[in-house]
Amino acid sequence: MGRDDPRISGEDRLIAEYFRPIALAPGAMDLRDDAAFFTPPDGHDLVLTKDALVAGVHFFPDDPPRMIAQKALRVNLSDLAAKGAVPAGFLLALALPKPVDTAWLAAFSAGLQADAEEFACPLLGGDTVTTAGPITISITALGTLPRGTMVHREGAQAGDHIFVSGTIGDAALGLRLPRGGAAATQWGIDLAAADYLVGRYLVPHPRVGLTKAIRDYASSAMDVSDGLAGDLAKLCLASGVSADVDVTRIPLSTAAAAAVENNPDTLVTALTGGDDYEIVCTVAEDRRAAFIAAAQAASVDVVEIGRIVVGDAPPRFTRDGKVFDTGAGSFSHF
Amino acid sequence: MGRDDPRISGEDRLIAEYFRPIALAPGAMDLRDDAAFFTPPDGHDLVLTKDALVAGVHFFPDDPPRMIAQKALRVNLSDLAAKGAVPAGFLLALALPKPVDTAWLAAFSAGLQADAEEFACPLLGGDTVTTAGPITISITALGTLPRGTMVHREGAQAGDHIFVSGTIGDAALGLRLPRGGAAATQWGIDLAAADYLVGRYLVPHPRVGLTKAIRDYASSAMDVSDGLAGDLAKLCLASGVSADVDVTRIPLSTAAAAAVENNPDTLVTALTGGDDYEIVCTVAEDRRAAFIAAAQAASVDVVEIGRIVVGDAPPRFTRDGKVFDTGAGSFSHF
Repeated sequence: MGRDDPRISGEDRLIAEYFRPIALAPGAMDLRDDAAFFTPPDGHDLVLTKDALVAGVHFFPDDPPRMIAQKALRVNLSDLAAKGAVPAGFLLALALPKPVDTAWLAAFSAGLQADAEEFACPLLGGDTVTTAGPITISITALGTLPRGTMVHREGAQAGDHIFVSGTIGDAALGLRLPRGGAAATQWGIDLAAADYLVGRYLVPHPRVGLTKAIRDYASSAMDVSDGLAGDLAKLCLASGVSADVDVTRIPLSTAAAAAVENNPDTLVTALTGGDDYEIVCTVAEDRRAAFIAAAQAASVDVVEIGRIVVGDAPPRFTRDGKVFDTGAGSFSHF
Repeated sequence: MGRDDPRISGEDRLIAEYFRPIALAPGAMDLRDDAAFFTPPDGHDLVLTKDALVAGVHFFPDDPPRMIAQKALRVNLSDLAAKGAVPAGFLLALALPKPVDTAWLAAFSAGLQADAEEFACPLLGGDTVTTAGPITISITALGTLPRGTMVHREGAQAGDHIFVSGTIGDAALGLRLPRGGAAATQWGIDLAAADYLVGRYLVPHPRVGLTKAIRDYASSAMDVSDGLAGDLAKLCLASGVSADVDVTRIPLSTAAAAAVENNPDTLVTALTGGDDYEIVCTVAEDRRAAFIAAAQAASVDVVEIGRIVVGDAPPRFTRDGKVFDTGAGSFSHF
């Protein structure tokens, strides 16, 4: 057996070289079978999420392949965290143009491996195919949580406090940043700040540390992937409520704050632009202190930005007492 | 709320119109959340499979969209059946060119819905995105079985009987059939036979009825998706054995038998061409009668085609006592 064994196809060799090292779960069976198995802990539910990323739509074809892989996995881990689920494993479908760019694939699989280890989320299985189109990646991630404890979009009640994790708008600003020296001259931010924003676009940091705090204390939650304004609107719609948000309390990074200070128009971008992969959640009054303490214990920054209110209007964003118009709201592919 | 509500994006409308009717599992939450949940029965394992299909590679762009959808789901159901798992649900990632062809999408989702119902395998969630390339479909299917009972590729033992379900080679012949009147003049088969072969290529029939018989009696199993010769070679490689196969016992449909009769060269195509979505499995001598009885009770045809033997050579195909060369063996994308 070996490289010249006719029973081992090019596809099998590619899987063996680039993906077997990531397939460390027993149920992956070294990717040598048609399917994987997974043994869920008794008394637990699975949480399942699936995101597709297409070159030219969700990432630039010349983005570093390591980072593309990390983003592809992390957007799913972000969904799991927002639902209160602990990552358990993932499946990967990868459509690649021919001939396969092995340097690209090596860096891609190295990024996946690093994240599979960091987040204790091993590769379980998948499929690798060719395409005449752009690189297309689809990941299905599995998480587990005690039965019946998934946190939903619906569940927010009037009076609940609205929290967001981390900082909002970095990725959207990083995506739209004037390139080269223009970031300094047009936006008035230095190179380090510009790099920070671009980095936040390229590689999200899913708030997995917040998972248990959300499950224990949040009345509703979702990850912020399509812009805070639009995603909070979706959460309110699902819950049958409205919201009042104080724009001045929305957490901005130092870099984003500098960009907004020098270019006030970019604040709308920050609130609607997408790719934050932070978490927005609602917490009842009597759980607020415990939620904050749990987030602190988990070393995840959370900031209260407003309250849930009765009504079915879209969330109202105000700044210094005046309505702040966030425009159309949310990113949509169609 | 409604079509003009700015909080409901085009993407959400598309999901509501075409996919919500298929999302009948409670854990799908009407596709209104970021993730789905699934409550596995205690004491059971999950079996997970994921296949990607790309227009121009796995199907022709002008194949009927209803059938494309059915094939995309059924190839996964075929994997589950071969592992002994009962379907529980699926997730769908769909990358579509813009503007969305709503007639195509309506027929595609109708096909998915029909199969989700027929196979009791509801849509749990997924993602719908745009692409500059061909339509790309990735389905992750979940099945369940009693803990530790998944049937693997490895496990075949010397002396085991080799069975295949249904008939072999129809899809490969259907794919390569001379179109129009040439099927009759070149291959000597009539229109009904030609239609049958093409139909077998377009819409596979996963042998879900055989699931329990495989779990109860097979020592190893896999679905035949890349050609019987190559897939049996993979099973033997995984099990550390070889095989003797009698080509004259391999079950051919009436249509395939006519094509082979008139064009002996097409027999190699039938044995290596792929897309059968039948099951090849091995059964120990003392379970052979029970397996045959269980398959009969499930109304699935199974035929014994040979025996597992000691060795690490590729399976040996013989016809009337002479070695029959199947060539390179198996379809590979790379």
